[in-house]
Amino acid sequence: MLRTISALAKNRPGVLAEMTAEFGKYNANIRSMAAGETENPEVSRLVIQVEGEEAEIDTITRALEDMEPIVQVDDLARKEFVDRELVMIKVDMDREKTGQLMQVFEVFRANVVGMGEETITVEMTGDQDRVNGLINMLAGYGIRSMCRSGMIALKRGDE
Amino acid sequence: MLRTISALAKNRPGVLAEMTAEFGKYNANIRSMAAGETENPEVSRLVIQVEGEEAEIDTITRALEDMEPIVQVDDLARKEFVDRELVMIKVDMDREKTGQLMQVFEVFRANVVGMGEETITVEMTGDQDRVNGLINMLAGYGIRSMCRSGMIALKRGDE
Repeated sequence: MLRTISALAKNRPGVLAEMTAEFGKYNANIRSMAAGETENPEVSRLVIQVEGEEAEIDTITRALEDMEPIVQVDDLARKEFVDRELVMIKVDMDREKTGQLMQVFEVFRANVVGMGEETITVEMTGDQDRVNGLINMLAGYGIRSMCRSGMIALKRGDE
Repeated sequence: MLRTISALAKNRPGVLAEMTAEFGKYNANIRSMAAGETENPEVSRLVIQVEGEEAEIDTITRALEDMEPIVQVDDLARKEFVDRELVMIKVDMDREKTGQLMQVFEVFRANVVGMGEETITVEMTGDQDRVNGLINMLAGYGIRSMCRSGMIALKRGDE
């Protein structure tokens, strides 16, 4: 199963290695990870999507909670949260298909961020269904390269 | 100094741990990391921003290139690329400041994705200057929580 874990960790060398090693121990596959700074320069927030057995992911989560540099761990499956992902896609373009492609970009509110001689590069932000939808739609035109941020998430409400 | 490295790696358990351990060895601090799937389901793309001595980062980059699961490594400092980052920010809101806040959101093209009783949550995508600009602007209103995706990037042109 696929689970999403959000963690706040002290921002210092080696913390990511220590955390990812814990996942490796249980052979749990990290499908995506987004790690960036927070409002506190000493703390980073990581959002990790992981694939594995439920009991093993529970064990990993408890181990993360016990690590000294880790300030907080949330299992997002159990909380209400808003999630978003950013994707950039470089897609093949020929003159005949330009109109169709532009329509797809408009429907998905994807923004053009670059043009080559044979390709066009767009960015889009949305929940994962929307990101997967755009990718599926563009696959038929030929995806040359792609970069996904991994899911980021914040709890709903004021907390 | 801050350097940005983009890598394509085979998507299997333990690869992230192996990679991040290499950074840990040299005490290089990973400031942000975005890891997600690509157009090839067997390959993930990672974009890593790292802070450290130039010579050490060169050594780390060479070590990454030699790892079996790693397909390709690019030093983005040396290539032309388009970069973007996604941020979600939950900011304190009171009735008197709503108008001002909405103007800030409009200028930065930030979209409202959630409302609480005392807070409003927005998302924005842009290059890192733009993301830092929004954060600096909202800091004065009180940032309750924040999640950044880390930089993602694709080469310019058709390659």
